[in-house]
Amino acid sequence: MNQDTDFLRQAIALAYANAERGGRPFGAVIVKDGKLIAQAVNEIVGTKDPTAHAELLAIRAASRYLDSASLEGCSVFASGHPCPMCMGAMRMAGIEAVTYAYSNEDADPFGLSTAEAYADLAKPFEEQSMRIRHLPVRLEGEPDLYARWQQRR
Amino acid sequence: MNQDTDFLRQAIALAYANAERGGRPFGAVIVKDGKLIAQAVNEIVGTKDPTAHAELLAIRAASRYLDSASLEGCSVFASGHPCPMCMGAMRMAGIEAVTYAYSNEDADPFGLSTAEAYADLAKPFEEQSMRIRHLPVRLEGEPDLYARWQQRR
Repeated sequence: MNQDTDFLRQAIALAYANAERGGRPFGAVIVKDGKLIAQAVNEIVGTKDPTAHAELLAIRAASRYLDSASLEGCSVFASGHPCPMCMGAMRMAGIEAVTYAYSNEDADPFGLSTAEAYADLAKPFEEQSMRIRHLPVRLEGEPDLYARWQQRR
Repeated sequence: MNQDTDFLRQAIALAYANAERGGRPFGAVIVKDGKLIAQAVNEIVGTKDPTAHAELLAIRAASRYLDSASLEGCSVFASGHPCPMCMGAMRMAGIEAVTYAYSNEDADPFGLSTAEAYADLAKPFEEQSMRIRHLPVRLEGEPDLYARWQQRR
């Protein structure tokens, strides 16, 4: 637990340092077998890449370090409550655990909460603010896309 | 609607081409004001980056094209049902609409469905397969992280 608190402090220190440089106040580290293997800060301001959240960049760095798309056995320590994109990314990459320090309630007065996005994405597709449509278009004369992929693997 | 079908066909054609090259069978294009501004395929196999989904890479390409982290007014056309990470990324980037052709039901027999991840992420944090913890750690002697960020902006 003390070690977990230390990793969380490192993520928070990254967030402070990023804010001092004019970036958004978010940092994250990834740990495997008790060892820090990746760290990142939010880089949206510098890159204008809307996906450049600390957690997502840390996942990418950890996959490079491990030379694997699977982050099984890895834990994420994030300064703030991860957004839906990052939570999905961690879940899909096989992250075992995520710990965060600042909550969405802490973030709300500063316009940094993702609670609204969470609530929106939890609604049925037809009720969300982003319009989501399923059009079962197919390319004529082609075998099924996924069956074709399975054949080629 | 016909133009929408054409954009969806382009996304599907990208998915077929990626499968032929040994990649995963997913493609996506992004459209603004009726014009295709970005396209991408799933690059996980080649890069071992677990975030290299077609939609996420298309978002990154569109933000570079527009030189903006906001993709307001943009629509995504994806060959397959977007995963939770990509759905979150699109929602957070301000994407207006997303249209997909192959459903999770189509994908399920091939192990490509994200329905299980959706169901897991929809549960309360304490019931999800990934362990999610909130530890309200703070750095001693520092002002509040988010208040400090607001002062520095």
